[in-house]
Amino acid sequence: MKKIALMGSTGSVGTQTLDVVRKYPNKLKVFALSANSNIDLLFKQIKEFKPEIVGVFDTKKAQKLQKKVKIKVLSGKDMLEKIAEMKNYDTFITATVGLTIIKATIIAIQNKKNVAIANKETLVAAGEIVMQEAKKNNVQLMPIDSEHSALFQCLNGENKKTIKSLVITCSGGALRDYTKEDLKNVSIKDALGHKTWAMGQKITIDSATLMNKGFEVIEAMWLYDVKPENIQVVIHPESLIHSMIEFSDNSIIAQISEPDMKLPIQYALSYPDRWDEAVKRHSFNRSYSFKKPDLERFPCLGYAWKAMKIGGTMPAAMNAANDTMVNKFLNGQCQYLDISKIIKKVMNSHKSIKNPSLDDIEKAIQEATKLTNKFAKN
Amino acid sequence: MKKIALMGSTGSVGTQTLDVVRKYPNKLKVFALSANSNIDLLFKQIKEFKPEIVGVFDTKKAQKLQKKVKIKVLSGKDMLEKIAEMKNYDTFITATVGLTIIKATIIAIQNKKNVAIANKETLVAAGEIVMQEAKKNNVQLMPIDSEHSALFQCLNGENKKTIKSLVITCSGGALRDYTKEDLKNVSIKDALGHKTWAMGQKITIDSATLMNKGFEVIEAMWLYDVKPENIQVVIHPESLIHSMIEFSDNSIIAQISEPDMKLPIQYALSYPDRWDEAVKRHSFNRSYSFKKPDLERFPCLGYAWKAMKIGGTMPAAMNAANDTMVNKFLNGQCQYLDISKIIKKVMNSHKSIKNPSLDDIEKAIQEATKLTNKFAKN
Repeated sequence: MKKIALMGSTGSVGTQTLDVVRKYPNKLKVFALSANSNIDLLFKQIKEFKPEIVGVFDTKKAQKLQKKVKIKVLSGKDMLEKIAEMKNYDTFITATVGLTIIKATIIAIQNKKNVAIANKETLVAAGEIVMQEAKKNNVQLMPIDSEHSALFQCLNGENKKTIKSLVITCSGGALRDYTKEDLKNVSIKDALGHKTWAMGQKITIDSATLMNKGFEVIEAMWLYDVKPENIQVVIHPESLIHSMIEFSDNSIIAQISEPDMKLPIQYALSYPDRWDEAVKRHSFNRSYSFKKPDLERFPCLGYAWKAMKIGGTMPAAMNAANDTMVNKFLNGQCQYLDISKIIKKVMNSHKSIKNPSLDDIEKAIQEATKLTNKFAKN
Repeated sequence: MKKIALMGSTGSVGTQTLDVVRKYPNKLKVFALSANSNIDLLFKQIKEFKPEIVGVFDTKKAQKLQKKVKIKVLSGKDMLEKIAEMKNYDTFITATVGLTIIKATIIAIQNKKNVAIANKETLVAAGEIVMQEAKKNNVQLMPIDSEHSALFQCLNGENKKTIKSLVITCSGGALRDYTKEDLKNVSIKDALGHKTWAMGQKITIDSATLMNKGFEVIEAMWLYDVKPENIQVVIHPESLIHSMIEFSDNSIIAQISEPDMKLPIQYALSYPDRWDEAVKRHSFNRSYSFKKPDLERFPCLGYAWKAMKIGGTMPAAMNAANDTMVNKFLNGQCQYLDISKIIKKVMNSHKSIKNPSLDDIEKAIQEATKLTNKFAKN
């Protein structure tokens, strides 16, 4: 029986994780849950999964929930860290959005727990620190993400030293077939038109700009310890091959399935075992196509390599600039093409700090956010 | 340094194996070579690779070669067995055609050597016996064949118990797009038109009838210990995915590369390691397509499941009937459609013996061959 601490249990990955728990009551048990503010759903989850402790980021909502339940409701800024340092669980799952989970993730690693990472910012902004801690504490990080789970599965039983390249597939996003001219007039609706995966608005825009794929490239670099130049991205519109590893002998191992987050979630929990039917069975009745990504139309993808090569706080700054710009775009405060334009300007201005501490990273993010707002105004 | 005993060194797989040896002089050393009758090429190989012993099946040719070389030249019926039972080598490679190598393969297994199998008949005709010996002696059999090597690579680091199905890919052969009507008038030239792989005439006809794929299905059943109903064949004309494994969670792991026998040969020798550049690097600039095989147009593929389900000597009898009929077709002694028609008749008449000995298998093959000749005359 694996006891899980599921941070971000009311979000998309969180609720799907609980679907897996529901399917395997003899293999999985919920120790802790946390939510940002959706205490109505959290209350239902407490009733069903009977955790020993929960956390709510919003202090007022936490107090409101505490009146309705007998278990302890933690709250406030260090709520995630408090849960991470507890003894009575096995796997810490980071399904929250944003930077707040990074400190808690490091604590869970130091606490020698299994850590399953769904949060993007952890490795994009703090990959160096997190991987150092994982290595030091001999903790295996499990990715909850189709591409990185695919890479993990392809690497099973192989020697990391024989990796020639990681081949990360990419649906191409909602604007895949737009010309350079078309991209000048992209509406919010156009950019949200990405249909292969059901995702939130922010990540759907990141998929449209391919910034999301850029983040995945950075995460993959940290998770699998490869050089930036040994990561390729291939556009594969059918989203059936979720990523591949090319080995030294030019043999390529690929992971294929219907696109469904349930597979990486279940695999992260079942590994090294595999359980049953995480996704619908795949039939070989469709063609798979591939093409090279066009970095001229989708410059954000190229920025990832620049960020990796400069290193230090640069990926965090890039991420902060993107957060700010996507938010502006979704609020109708800028054009689609401004997103990449301003990120580039911010990256050109950002002075990266080598071997950054978490504080350095937070400071870099604050500065990059300010810079983004400034550039976006002009 | 791995010392190899390469049986069938003058054939297609044999010469390609020596190409790998030539590339890795610090990893591989030739201990023994054998040929059927091509002593001119064998002589050159002796000069270059300096084996300690060689074998020639043809006794007169062996005597001729013995006069030209200082090392011992074995000959005659049990030549392969004599080499197999020697002490001073690590890996026994069976790259000969036909049934003669089976006894020697079992001896190499009992001798606790690594065994790399390129010979089709070994597992098709005697899979039960060979796998029992491999299990008893704790010997890992390495397949030298694109499809089985692909399956082996996909299974790396996974638990065999979580296999849901093997998905064996198939180019479809030279007659893939022929209608039922077209198939009535297939010439030898038509059937030899298969271009993806450079192969001998016999195996090219087997590819055209899909009998070859049927043999591979039987071999895969033995190698990976799965039930016949858990093996699928998928037509994949581009021959870039070489086979796949579907696991219990519906995740599929696939092996991809340019089609080239050098990869399975090198992998069989490098495993568990991977060495460099066995094949040309693959670029993702082509589409992959798939369709279901048509058992009505290609009945030989379906016979494989019938043979597996009946078991015993039935696969050996099927193989013998196919050998005889393909030979007749290549000699202009029968029509293309007679191949499948007569094999079916032979299988319907053959009385399978359960848990057969090697003698039972040899007897079944002789009887099936006689029966095939008889049916083909009528």
